[in-house]
Amino acid sequence: MIVVMSSGATEEQINMVMRKIEEYGLQVHPIFGVEKTIIGVIGDDKTKIVETMAGYPGVEKIIPILKPYKFAARETHPEDTIIQVGDVSIGGDHLTIMAGPCAVESREQILNVARMVKLAGGSVLRGGAYKPRTSPYSFQGLGEEGLKYLAEAREETGLPIVTELTDPRKMELFCNYADIIQVGARNMQNFVLLTEIGKSGHPVLLKRGPSSKIEDLLLAAEYIIKEGNSQIILCERGISTFETYTRNTLDLSAVAALKSLTHLPVVVDPSHAVGISSIVPSMCYAAVAAGADGLLIEIHPNPNSALCDGPQSLDFEKFYATMKTIRKVASAVGKKVG
Amino acid sequence: MIVVMSSGATEEQINMVMRKIEEYGLQVHPIFGVEKTIIGVIGDDKTKIVETMAGYPGVEKIIPILKPYKFAARETHPEDTIIQVGDVSIGGDHLTIMAGPCAVESREQILNVARMVKLAGGSVLRGGAYKPRTSPYSFQGLGEEGLKYLAEAREETGLPIVTELTDPRKMELFCNYADIIQVGARNMQNFVLLTEIGKSGHPVLLKRGPSSKIEDLLLAAEYIIKEGNSQIILCERGISTFETYTRNTLDLSAVAALKSLTHLPVVVDPSHAVGISSIVPSMCYAAVAAGADGLLIEIHPNPNSALCDGPQSLDFEKFYATMKTIRKVASAVGKKVG
Amino acid sequence: MIVVMSSGATEEQINMVMRKIEEYGLQVHPIFGVEKTIIGVIGDDKTKIVETMAGYPGVEKIIPILKPYKFAARETHPEDTIIQVGDVSIGGDHLTIMAGPCAVESREQILNVARMVKLAGGSVLRGGAYKPRTSPYSFQGLGEEGLKYLAEAREETGLPIVTELTDPRKMELFCNYADIIQVGARNMQNFVLLTEIGKSGHPVLLKRGPSSKIEDLLLAAEYIIKEGNSQIILCERGISTFETYTRNTLDLSAVAALKSLTHLPVVVDPSHAVGISSIVPSMCYAAVAAGADGLLIEIHPNPNSALCDGPQSLDFEKFYATMKTIRKVASAVGKKVG
Amino acid sequence: MIVVMSSGATEEQINMVMRKIEEYGLQVHPIFGVEKTIIGVIGDDKTKIVETMAGYPGVEKIIPILKPYKFAARETHPEDTIIQVGDVSIGGDHLTIMAGPCAVESREQILNVARMVKLAGGSVLRGGAYKPRTSPYSFQGLGEEGLKYLAEAREETGLPIVTELTDPRKMELFCNYADIIQVGARNMQNFVLLTEIGKSGHPVLLKRGPSSKIEDLLLAAEYIIKEGNSQIILCERGISTFETYTRNTLDLSAVAALKSLTHLPVVVDPSHAVGISSIVPSMCYAAVAAGADGLLIEIHPNPNSALCDGPQSLDFEKFYATMKTIRKVASAVGKKVG
Repeated sequence: MIVVMSSGATEEQINMVMRKIEEYGLQVHPIFGVEKTIIGVIGDDKTKIVETMAGYPGVEKIIPILKPYKFAARETHPEDTIIQVGDVSIGGDHLTIMAGPCAVESREQILNVARMVKLAGGSVLRGGAYKPRTSPYSFQGLGEEGLKYLAEAREETGLPIVTELTDPRKMELFCNYADIIQVGARNMQNFVLLTEIGKSGHPVLLKRGPSSKIEDLLLAAEYIIKEGNSQIILCERGISTFETYTRNTLDLSAVAALKSLTHLPVVVDPSHAVGISSIVPSMCYAAVAAGADGLLIEIHPNPNSALCDGPQSLDFEKFYATMKTIRKVASAVGKKVG
Repeated sequence: MIVVMSSGATEEQINMVMRKIEEYGLQVHPIFGVEKTIIGVIGDDKTKIVETMAGYPGVEKIIPILKPYKFAARETHPEDTIIQVGDVSIGGDHLTIMAGPCAVESREQILNVARMVKLAGGSVLRGGAYKPRTSPYSFQGLGEEGLKYLAEAREETGLPIVTELTDPRKMELFCNYADIIQVGARNMQNFVLLTEIGKSGHPVLLKRGPSSKIEDLLLAAEYIIKEGNSQIILCERGISTFETYTRNTLDLSAVAALKSLTHLPVVVDPSHAVGISSIVPSMCYAAVAAGADGLLIEIHPNPNSALCDGPQSLDFEKFYATMKTIRKVASAVGKKVG
Repeated sequence: MIVVMSSGATEEQINMVMRKIEEYGLQVHPIFGVEKTIIGVIGDDKTKIVETMAGYPGVEKIIPILKPYKFAARETHPEDTIIQVGDVSIGGDHLTIMAGPCAVESREQILNVARMVKLAGGSVLRGGAYKPRTSPYSFQGLGEEGLKYLAEAREETGLPIVTELTDPRKMELFCNYADIIQVGARNMQNFVLLTEIGKSGHPVLLKRGPSSKIEDLLLAAEYIIKEGNSQIILCERGISTFETYTRNTLDLSAVAALKSLTHLPVVVDPSHAVGISSIVPSMCYAAVAAGADGLLIEIHPNPNSALCDGPQSLDFEKFYATMKTIRKVASAVGKKVG
Repeated sequence: MIVVMSSGATEEQINMVMRKIEEYGLQVHPIFGVEKTIIGVIGDDKTKIVETMAGYPGVEKIIPILKPYKFAARETHPEDTIIQVGDVSIGGDHLTIMAGPCAVESREQILNVARMVKLAGGSVLRGGAYKPRTSPYSFQGLGEEGLKYLAEAREETGLPIVTELTDPRKMELFCNYADIIQVGARNMQNFVLLTEIGKSGHPVLLKRGPSSKIEDLLLAAEYIIKEGNSQIILCERGISTFETYTRNTLDLSAVAALKSLTHLPVVVDPSHAVGISSIVPSMCYAAVAAGADGLLIEIHPNPNSALCDGPQSLDFEKFYATMKTIRKVASAVGKKVG
């Protein structure tokens, strides 16, 4: 921790700050510069207490030096974490394709989609049963019925399923059905939910919130790991910016950044990020080239009649074609689909 | 709803889209322009179904005309909603000052603060007992013990209390303690929580999410009203932008916009928005001048030792002085404190 | 300057960095922490050279301590700068109202507006003769003819004029006509233009760019001051954010921040910021309450037929009414119009 | 153009708006919906005038239907524009690598780099002679001397050069030296400069401004094309967002969007976008996979001693390795380097 004193700080103020830091049991190392004095503070995590001194007279600002997350940091765990879900390995040099509709709409729809995912070479089936929607008047999902259809699709195809949990009171229900529990972007900082998932030990796909910094995402992961669960897949899905042409702005540099900052696998959801199906294939290729460990792709047998997010879904033909190029790009950057 | 066909759309594509819309039981009104054809769709809320047609061949985009929220709209409820909490009226020409610490830290602290709020002319006591924090290693609040201290402070001073709920399983507990339940910015789109609060009928203070548009905030309010609860106070508390000097960017034009779009009262939390106590008073005055119905101000007997958000808290002396100018500004724009 | 070494940095790397810094003629002060080593660097402005070392092996990041602007900083010039333009004083406890149309459209229009500005108590006439417009197909202004009409309006009413310069080759022309030269938001980092204006010594109104941080604005001002011209009025006019209801997001906390960081006067342009005339009055009041030294308000005799930015212009009646409340709010915060 | 009347608009207001539109010589097509009336306006570009009616009584908003740019639109020019600079073709299925230092620092440096670019398979040499810098105290470039060194490097290697112009008064000078004139992000809306470049007919590389929408970039291009110059290469280089880990947020979905909206070639500058050299290679691969027609890569013989932007520059070894993978990714998406 570094305390920067303002250029007008008096000797007395500087001494007061140093005394206070020492009272906390920390070591101070003042550096008296030409214009300003800075105070280095030593003492590991315990230096965090110094942050509360930002309002002291003469203090200009306080700069943390240590990363605020520990267990999620690559510094403390240099090798890639590989998450095993049934036969599927996520992380390392695997590229995992998770595909399916935004929402489970019917038994027939999800069975159809699951077969297509399998056929095209995907590894995980995605689909929402409980849908958080911006408007209360939009389709909110089939609920438990949807989970049952997903389970049936898994039984037939062998594909593990990932589906979104929004209510901590449904934790047990989801543990029975889902192979990977998804935390949606809107719930990335729903710490009540994160803590429950942490306790469950269940694999989780944690989506980045639309206004969350990379560091906030890692701190959200830390809430889960802290409870003993490091089965976490991070997911970039676009951030809020001034650009309105795409729904969100897909931040692919976050993928490369995350791969260097953390050992957890990082996947990308281009469908939600851009919201326009004609751009989705290009963004799939770009995400793979950027180093993603997997993709979450929305597909639908008939996007024009989808109850949710049709405009961003690929139909079967386009998905199949997209998978072909994905394989080539993956190979170019040393990854292997599946 | 308006469907804009792309400039290259064929007659056949245009006819297909119109047929489909009519199949939904809606009326079509095509306008054949020089470069493009647009199709007006009539049929009230039911036109929403047309949004799913965004991916049809030849369709460039679909533009909604009706506001997506109903009960929250001033169009459907022209007079200001005034919310009564004990003796306190929120909305109309009242300016309601809600003040207190970020977190309840001890019985003594909250009692002290409550007396100060009362003395300075504030109407509501704020204070968090369950604190959602970006880092799992930060102070998370005193829990139910904190709620008890708040209740004690209310008993002594008569000030109603507002405190944040983060867990739907604690709904009943909060109904017992809180006069106004706060939904924090991170939970603005926690629809599970919103629905529970809607059912409870309890007054609620709903904070705008850091990446939520004005319309998203009104849709979140709609989740609550739809369940029969229109005791909603909206709160602007800063949005995520590229500027890093302040913690968030306080969006005061949202206050003026909201006052025209909705009948619900709108308050402002300058403390969380800017995160720097020296700027907070100016932002209090600006918020009042912008037409806010109230302020949420963080105060602390000793900001330098606060366990949470000390740097943005006013001490008693500054709060008292700030209140004086608030009264003058309120009077200049036709509002009355209390 | 502080160099933070990564937690895995070797002793050799740390020594290499320190040697290099010393070669630059600077002093090093290493602090060996529990997890990381940081190196304090002393030597005034000359420490800037150390920033180029960010890519050295073992270096995690480099943190500047000194503010990058000097002459614009309040630290080096504690009293408010007051700019004198004819009889008008800008800064200190003066609140200067600058009003007029977005674009000069005709002799009659600008004369009419000038009289109204005078009548309502405004001090400066604004109006664009050369208009930078997002689309090349929009009205681009009357050019020199517009400047002549502005001069005529000044002659009649005595109001000094502020008008935008976009071309460094027109510097001389503008010095003949304008009392205050405006640098538009799009040109805030047009350093060629800033340098010319700096050399001219002419009073300048410098608008903040839509994606410029507060610090970038101060550095743009520094380009001008560095040439010997400190007659600079800063102007907040909204920043680019994800919110689309208003044209830009007016950042009033920047006003309070700027007033503490710099001695230069700060004015606000609510008209361009929000782009909706019905919200402009509230934002005028809020800006004054936030501590602005002046306002730039768009008015038009007939906003519905304006060639530029009609939707955000006030007509005479609304401007007159708005001025009344502005006076009251100004008085509440200790400022005086004029 | 569509005029949406507010739900409370009176018959008289609706008639007034329609009359006014007809006075402009345009056709009106009203659609009387259940809650609102909308008015379709026909008449090609001339409908633009209707935008000025946004403030009319009863008008809620005005929605343009036609794209505001014409010559830049793929709709009016379906085939890819391919720009020929000496032997180099930019656009179509070519992937053009433009590489070099941020700033020309010396004759030796630029000659060295040019040889490296040639050796690694790059096609164009980049390097700044006039550097616009946020701070007036940063290195501002060698000026004309830098241009001369660039020309010498071209002579030796045969590589065409791209370099940034910031001053319209230097147009002629640049036409003598540069093969491609670069307009920097800060000058994207410097319309004076764009117009001069338009008149010159010289090939231009136009960088997207950090807060410019995709549409704004196309309108800036339109300023150049309108003068008769369609030799324009667009460049995505990151936008301003709340994320601070990277310098800007590289918006690769803009590349895919631009490729569908315009016939002009689109290149990407990952170095300036992210500002961290270790992430640059991944972003090069991602940009190619996203469909970019070229890359602008910063390289430096010794990044640690660069006078400008060292931290984001690749050294020769990394550049050479990056080029290898670029070739593989290009091939995976059907592009060819060179």
